[in-house]
Amino acid sequence: MTVTLSIVGKSGSGKTTLITRLIPLLQKKGYRVGVIKHTGHGFEMDHKGKDSWKHQQAGADAVMVASDSAYALIKKVTPVSLDELVTQLGDLDLIITEGYKNSHFPKIDVHRSATGKSPLTGLAHLVGHITDTPQEDGLPSIDIDDTQGVADFIIATFL
Amino acid sequence: MTVTLSIVGKSGSGKTTLITRLIPLLQKKGYRVGVIKHTGHGFEMDHKGKDSWKHQQAGADAVMVASDSAYALIKKVTPVSLDELVTQLGDLDLIITEGYKNSHFPKIDVHRSATGKSPLTGLAHLVGHITDTPQEDGLPSIDIDDTQGVADFIIATFL
Repeated sequence: MTVTLSIVGKSGSGKTTLITRLIPLLQKKGYRVGVIKHTGHGFEMDHKGKDSWKHQQAGADAVMVASDSAYALIKKVTPVSLDELVTQLGDLDLIITEGYKNSHFPKIDVHRSATGKSPLTGLAHLVGHITDTPQEDGLPSIDIDDTQGVADFIIATFL
Repeated sequence: MTVTLSIVGKSGSGKTTLITRLIPLLQKKGYRVGVIKHTGHGFEMDHKGKDSWKHQQAGADAVMVASDSAYALIKKVTPVSLDELVTQLGDLDLIITEGYKNSHFPKIDVHRSATGKSPLTGLAHLVGHITDTPQEDGLPSIDIDDTQGVADFIIATFL
């Protein structure tokens, strides 16, 4: 079974840094971890001028580059739900989404007071805070610098 | 139903150029077209320093970036067959593979005499040549500069 968990928080709170630190800690415990990130921008496969880039520029509905150890796929879609994207990642233990704060998946808010922004509170399915300023809404607050503590919380709660 | 067709030929014969020209011609007829290319090298998602690149560098088993019109996915795999890769591209009318000359899919050889290399002959499931030097093995030879002729041949034979 694949668990999906959203790491949410205002911009600059450190979501990407936290996720990149969590991945190896979770993998060390034997979990296969995927990440989904939303972007408002376009993206290019591989680098300009390479064959796969040319296929994409030619307008292919799907372009895949495959080696013996990985594949990369860019696929045109009509707007799809997060649930459908999760399905495309296949069989993993945990899928972390960066953002997607309005999803129906459980969420952990990341907050750093130095940003001057308030934490995300009152979200549906919020299960905890990762913060340098413990919150008092009855949900657990984990120190933002204690990545191992965050990993342990995720494992204990979801895996 | 998705048709898979391999465009094969020695290096320098012009496979990538041909495929990039075929894609819009086939799409103009209403066909959804995907491409699979094998690489011996690694590849990176997006560009160095971007969030998705960081997730990949952190070792995630799968990384996806999604917008409202497309998604990009890099997934670690153990060596998988071309059939399994084809499945991952989903519902399309035609999947063109660049290379994969030993597959069980139908193949068209691309050959240009200026390369000084011989055409690929005698391959299993070879259905034709795209060449500047008509071959005499009983299979159709289509002029390499007649991309519309190649598109028409593919449509008539497979779609």
